[in-house]
Order: sequence, then C-alpha cells, then structure tokens
Amino acid sequence: MKELLSKAYAKTGESFISTILTAAADPNVISFAGGLPNPASFPMEALKESCNNIIDKYGSAVFQYAKTEGLQAFRQYLAEDYNKTYGVNLDADNIVVTTGSQQALDCFGKVFINEGDGILVEKPSYLGAFQAFDQYCPEYYPVTLNDDGLDIEELEETLEKYGDKIKLAYLIPEFQNPTGLTYTEENRAKVTEILKKYNVVLIEDDPYGQLRFEGTKPPYIGLGKLPQAALLGTFSKVATPGMRVGYVVTENKELAKYIAMALEATSLHTNIFSQYLLLDYLQNNDQPAHVKDIQDLYRQQCHCMLDAMDKYFPENVTYTRPEGGMFIWATLPEGVSAIKLFPKAAEKGVVYVPGDPFYVGVHDANTLRLNFTNASPEAIDKGIHLLGDMLKEECAGK
Amino acid sequence: MKELLSKAYAKTGESFISTILTAAADPNVISFAGGLPNPASFPMEALKESCNNIIDKYGSAVFQYAKTEGLQAFRQYLAEDYNKTYGVNLDADNIVVTTGSQQALDCFGKVFINEGDGILVEKPSYLGAFQAFDQYCPEYYPVTLNDDGLDIEELEETLEKYGDKIKLAYLIPEFQNPTGLTYTEENRAKVTEILKKYNVVLIEDDPYGQLRFEGTKPPYIGLGKLPQAALLGTFSKVATPGMRVGYVVTENKELAKYIAMALEATSLHTNIFSQYLLLDYLQNNDQPAHVKDIQDLYRQQCHCMLDAMDKYFPENVTYTRPEGGMFIWATLPEGVSAIKLFPKAAEKGVVYVPGDPFYVGVHDANTLRLNFTNASPEAIDKGIHLLGDMLKEECAGK
Repeated sequence: MKELLSKAYAKTGESFISTILTAAADPNVISFAGGLPNPASFPMEALKESCNNIIDKYGSAVFQYAKTEGLQAFRQYLAEDYNKTYGVNLDADNIVVTTGSQQALDCFGKVFINEGDGILVEKPSYLGAFQAFDQYCPEYYPVTLNDDGLDIEELEETLEKYGDKIKLAYLIPEFQNPTGLTYTEENRAKVTEILKKYNVVLIEDDPYGQLRFEGTKPPYIGLGKLPQAALLGTFSKVATPGMRVGYVVTENKELAKYIAMALEATSLHTNIFSQYLLLDYLQNNDQPAHVKDIQDLYRQQCHCMLDAMDKYFPENVTYTRPEGGMFIWATLPEGVSAIKLFPKAAEKGVVYVPGDPFYVGVHDANTLRLNFTNASPEAIDKGIHLLGDMLKEECAGK
Repeated sequence: MKELLSKAYAKTGESFISTILTAAADPNVISFAGGLPNPASFPMEALKESCNNIIDKYGSAVFQYAKTEGLQAFRQYLAEDYNKTYGVNLDADNIVVTTGSQQALDCFGKVFINEGDGILVEKPSYLGAFQAFDQYCPEYYPVTLNDDGLDIEELEETLEKYGDKIKLAYLIPEFQNPTGLTYTEENRAKVTEILKKYNVVLIEDDPYGQLRFEGTKPPYIGLGKLPQAALLGTFSKVATPGMRVGYVVTENKELAKYIAMALEATSLHTNIFSQYLLLDYLQNNDQPAHVKDIQDLYRQQCHCMLDAMDKYFPENVTYTRPEGGMFIWATLPEGVSAIKLFPKAAEKGVVYVPGDPFYVGVHDANTLRLNFTNASPEAIDKGIHLLGDMLKEECAGK
C-alpha cells in the first residue's frame, strides 16, 4: 500500500505526539510531556446541568445536522464577548466554529497552501501546527523567537527576501507553545507594522490567552489591526478539550467564508450538541470566576515547577519564566541532545517533550518542553528532582 | 486575498450544499432537498440519560483530550458487533472513530491523493465526497451506476485503461446517494473479483445500510474479501448526526494507522464525550428495536412519496424504487434540465437537489434527488403534487 500514499504521507514516520502519549500513559511515569489541562479546569457539574438544559430547551436540534459555520447564537455570543473585551466590532459572521483549533489549522492549510507555498513560523513553534500544515507540503520560513517576541530584524529580512512566496504567518504570541514566552507590546506593534506591508494572512493562535496568572495582557497583533488576520480561540483550556470546540475569529468575512467552505468539505460542521452545551454553560455560569480559579491553580503549579527547577537543575541549564499558559522551556548546554536523553529520563520515571519536533529540520536540539498543568505539586517536585539529577550528570562540564 | 488561495479553493464557487440548505431553511418551502434524518430517529430520552450516566461513571475522562483512534471500549464494541453480524474477525485496532464519515473521506484524500491521482467513482455519486476529494485535486474516473449496480463492462475497461493511475475506488453499494439504488449480490461479487486484480484501495461507504425496510442485505464488497478495503459507518442515521460520529472499519491495520495519522493532524481526535455517550447508549438500550422503528417510519414515508409520484408525475418521468435509505432519484425526459427548473420549483414552494453536483463535469442533467425522510406524509403528498404539476408542464411533449 505504501506506493499508493500521497507525498505528505509517504514521508511521515511514526507520529511523535503518539509516541509521547504512549510514554506518558505509563502510570509509573511522571509526565510533563503532554499538554493536558488539569481536570479541575472542567466545570463538570455545570456542564452536566447544561446537558440536561439543552435537551429540554432545544429538543431534537441539539442532535440534528447543523449549519457549517456553527450555531448562530453561540457565534453571536462569542462575537459580543470579543467586542466588549477588545473594543472590536464583530458579529456572528466573523466567527467560524471548528473541531478544536487543530481543525482551523487544517482548514487554513487547505484554503491557502499548495506544495512549496511559504508559511512563516516561529522558531521554535507548535508541533501540532507542523503536523496540520505538513499535509499540504509547504516551505517553512522560521523566524527566531526571542524573550521579548519575534526577532524583528530576522522577520524583516525574511519577508523582504521571501515575501512573494509566503502566504501565511503562523504565530502564538501569548504563552507560546512550546516556550511559554509572550511577545511584549512593543514587539507586537512592530510585527503588526511589518506584516501590514506584505500580502500575508496572519494566523494568531491564542489557545492560552485566558490562562494569564501574572502581568497584563498586551494587545493582539492582528485583531482590529490587520485586514487579513484570524485569531484562533478554543474552549479546550477553559472548559473541555474532549468536546473539540475551537473557533476562528476574523474581521475579514471573505476569509471566514473560505474557512467555512473548507470546514464543510472536512466534516460538514462542528458537533452541534457541544456548541449548544457551551452556549448554555456560558449563559448560566460565572465563567470569568471559573477562569480565575484555573489561573490560580496554574500559577501555583508553575511556581512549584520553577522552584523545583531552581533547586534541582544544574546552573548551565536555563529556562523561561512564563506569565501564564501551560509550558516551561528549558535550554541545556550546547551539544546536549534532549531527544537522546529522553529514554534515560523515561527509565528514571519522568518524561518531557524534546525540542526537535518544534523545529523545522533541527535534530538533537538542546531544548525541551515541560508541562506544569497536569501534575500534583508532589509529582512536580519529584519529577523535576529526578530530571535534575539526570541533567546534573549529563550536563556536567559542558 | 483571492490570489493567495490554493488551487483547489481558487476554483471553487459557492458551495452547492450551502445553497440547498439556505433554500431548504425557508419555512414556507417543502424541502425534499436535504439529507436530514427524521428527528424521530434520535433516541432523545435515552441519550439524555446516557449524558448523565457517563459523567457520573467516567468523570473528567469524558471532557479530557483522548487518543486519536477513538475510545478503546467503543471501538471494541463496534468491532464485536461487526464480528457477530458479518462473521469477520475484527478488534478495536480495526476501527478509527472519525468526526462523521465526511472526515473519513477527507482523511482518505489526505493519505492517498496528490494532484492528478485517480479516484474511481459511481456515476452519479455523493456530492459531499466530491467536496472532500476535490481539495486534493484528483482526476475522477466515473463508472455508470445501473439498476443492479456498477456497470461491469465499464468498470473493467476503466481499470484496464487507467488502473495504474487509480488509487481509490469510492462506492456506496447500498441505498446509494443520490440514486437510492442497491448493488445486487451478483453485481457485488463481480466488483470484488475485478477490484482484486488491481492495486486500488476500496472505500465502501455504508451510511444507510441499517435503513433497509424491504428485501435482504447483500454481502459487503470489501469487508472480509479485499485486503485494501475500508467500510465507512456512521451514527448519523440511526442515533444523531449532530454529534458527528462516524468510523472507518478496515481489516488492514496499516490503513487504519494512516487514517489515524491524518485524523490526528486534522482534529487531534473525535469528540470523546460523544463516543462515551454512544457507547453507553448502545450498552443500555435495545438499538436493534430502535433501528426497526426507523425502518418502519422510512418505509411508510418512502411509499407515501412513491405513491404520490405515481399519482402526480407525468409518465415520461421515471424514478427508482429504493429498498431502504433516504433518497429517490428521478429522471426527466432528455433535454430537460433539473437545475434550470430549480428556481421555478422553489417559487412554487418545493425544493429538491438537481442532478448536476452528483456528476463530474455534467451540466443541466435531467435528474434530481428527492429525500423522503424528513417530511410528514401530508407535506410529501403536497410537495410531490406541486412538483408533479410543474413537471407535467415542463416535460409535456418531450
């Protein structure tokens, strides 16, 4: 059968996410590898009540086929929420509800990318985005991500040189995956200015924006500023990932229309029960208070991990100090491969995601991603202790 | 933005499904256009009970991220059901749960099709499949669908001539969409024999198989017989389409693995709440009895429509007499365009799907699809009366 595969699938190996999930599923292992929200972030009782409410209230509509773009009232609710919070002027037609943000990424690939077309990405960037886009065989143009955001000089150079080939720019400016870094307000303003000069569609992925437990939120790069921009939102981190409900927000209704066309061809529409459910949940519960509880929990878990890293990691390993989100990014001394150390760490009983899959064409990267949201303080301390002991050994004298 | 679009999207116009849905949504119009199941086919009370059951029983797992392939126990349940009914030997790893069958079609496109690769299809075939596959810019090789199944001579000729280009064969052998036709057992056996000789992956789409209200079910073409075949199943017609739960059944575990890889890149996994829900529903309810009720309802609705067609349609309009499923296919005299008549019909207050979108490169087809599952007997009689009067006028002397 291999000879029948499409180009994209003929060159894929085992999925790295699957490998991680398998290692992380071992109950004897402390996993900092996944990106699972803490189950405490699922408002279970309220969701259960809403399940019953919507069946009683809307009857068969919650089980029937539905419009591709998503439930009108749900999209209107989301639009008004953005209007209130960010002073934009959206309505339901600016929103398309997708099967998680992942499906939005797939739809952008479908609508814009043919083999060889360019996508500008952060270096490093989200491995799931590479998986989605890889299916359309693009060329990637990585721009270094610094502590304050995108490397502006590199961004300008890249667009100057390859601007005619680059169709999409995929950025995660807040609590970035994998680094946990956030672009400063100043950096964002520069990125906006530069992107304005090119015919490029910006995908501003914002799965973690609500998980800010320190500092203040800088403005969006695209929303309200760029004519060809989309923001990706999701309920995966603030209500339930299992329901697979994300959404595309764009002031460009032509873009919304194309994304909906791709969505229709891909899965007809997003699970309508889940859309009714989340709408009812939002209408009848204090979601900001619930989000604050998640922020408090994750602040504690993040600090617990950073404290443990300060205590157990060798001095020649550096790491980010996120103001929110789910991840810390560690950098080992040059020449130390995090992927080569993965089996050793797993054997000791702790796993992480090695840096490699977050880059384009980089092997044996000296970086790794740690997730702090889905382990108890005790497990965090124990796992970081195990990892620190191994790193002390492996990084000594480097 | 248009200049940035991928080849597939640069050439798409307005989606025809959307046009139909819009016309059909007019409350003053009797719609035979959609493919909506009757809401009576949703076991609402039982599903509501299962919503509560699964939250109580499985807790946060029903809201958390899950494995790409789908819920293990659900896949095992489905595998055992096929084993019991069809004497095959499947386990959970032979099943991948998708976001409706539509997503399965998209995944097959991703895994196998590059621009110009061949897909063998029925003439006519399901328009949603064309929408899914079109995104990968294939060449279609249509084979005429006769009253007893695929035209065997044409199938042989097509594969002899283009077998090295054709990667997929997409067939709907039972209560076909759009025609309502079913391949006979003899025809199926011949198709199996011919496909055996070629390196082609068979997609046997079976959304309506359980909706048989007359006659007996012939054996599958691929399942248990072909080494590179997949059967597509769905809960859309026997429980709830809004939940978007379909599945791929394949004895070829390598194929299952590739489909799961594509699924992961597309939407990570299928809504897990819905999978727990359907598993609990199946475990705690008499689904065969529920399916029998749907069959009884659709038999009555189908006969009601056929009786009305016998009564009101002119003699030079012919139509299929389905043994199950959801659709009747009518053929007007040669030269009468069903798409040109669509606005007239809509104005009179009745809509259908004109034949064009079910063909490759055919315009002004003299065929149309009528759905009988989602209108009351009164509406069916009234709508067919309106349509018949118009057809008598338009087809007179042709």
